[in-house]
Amino acid sequence: MKKSIGSNTFAYPTPAWIIGSYDQNGKANGMTAAWAGVCCSDPPAVTVSLRKSRHSYQSILEREAFTVSIPSASYLEAVDFFGIASGKEVDKFEAAGLTPVRSELVDAPYVGEFPLILECKLLQTVELGQHIQFIGRVVDVKAEEDVLGENGKPEMRKISPLLYSPGESTYYGVGEILGKAYTSGLKFKK
Amino acid sequence: MKKSIGSNTFAYPTPAWIIGSYDQNGKANGMTAAWAGVCCSDPPAVTVSLRKSRHSYQSILEREAFTVSIPSASYLEAVDFFGIASGKEVDKFEAAGLTPVRSELVDAPYVGEFPLILECKLLQTVELGQHIQFIGRVVDVKAEEDVLGENGKPEMRKISPLLYSPGESTYYGVGEILGKAYTSGLKFKK
Repeated sequence: MKKSIGSNTFAYPTPAWIIGSYDQNGKANGMTAAWAGVCCSDPPAVTVSLRKSRHSYQSILEREAFTVSIPSASYLEAVDFFGIASGKEVDKFEAAGLTPVRSELVDAPYVGEFPLILECKLLQTVELGQHIQFIGRVVDVKAEEDVLGENGKPEMRKISPLLYSPGESTYYGVGEILGKAYTSGLKFKK
Repeated sequence: MKKSIGSNTFAYPTPAWIIGSYDQNGKANGMTAAWAGVCCSDPPAVTVSLRKSRHSYQSILEREAFTVSIPSASYLEAVDFFGIASGKEVDKFEAAGLTPVRSELVDAPYVGEFPLILECKLLQTVELGQHIQFIGRVVDVKAEEDVLGENGKPEMRKISPLLYSPGESTYYGVGEILGKAYTSGLKFKK
């Protein structure tokens, strides 16, 4: 028997990514985002939602670019800090001991220490209410070699990204491999 | 040293949700979606991207409604099947032995066996290319009591949802709790 728990954003899992941008002074900044995901295969595109009050909001609009830096779980404290502090008041990269690396493809910095980076050009914005959705075309993905599998593509267990749990404000790690897609479900096919 | 691996949708984690809708004949249908996530806190809203060729595409447009059914990992085979088969040819619920339950709030069915359901009204669509993004306002969330914590909110470890890994087409489970948000990062605050 299901129970109604109201209109809310209880959806699982959500990611914990750092969205990188340069502000009006050219300072590298980043913010943690969980309201984010993939939204299109061709062109490859991702979406991230921000409140207008965020320092990153104006930065992304002005440079029409952002990066997605996907952390390994060992960077949990820094990821959390990037969601607590404001780039208006502090240099978050410096405070957390992380390295802002200038993308050569888009006008935004990424986190040098993180294993997987998506460099994005702003395609469009969608006004939703408290959040504005930024849709970015993925111009390139950059990966540390040690997170790539034999086929040259990233493997999630090697990245070991963080998951964010809305409602309990908690970070989780990735668990076991449970099955292959387009294979496991064939048993129901007649 | 990072390596360029091209323009792609390598982002981690992505979810594995079943999106429920009624087709033109009133038949309950569902499709598996990984290009999906939360996009706004107020109004609470989620996004899911579909190709126009999907049977669900026209269904959601016509009824202006969909549900998000979040599975427990034990339903992996059914989740995968809902991503392989087409509702044009088969009754997926019947084939996989799942129960379509009519939402009382929106004109769409959800998966009765899954622990967490988001009932959504279509707010808008965004044309992106191969995929069209559907944005839905979350009218209500329904949960099995056993996935709720003491505060009445869902706990991710109790839901035990699936994660999807793009590039390796593999499902993972949720791992350990690693830390609390808005707490772990305070050590970098001066």
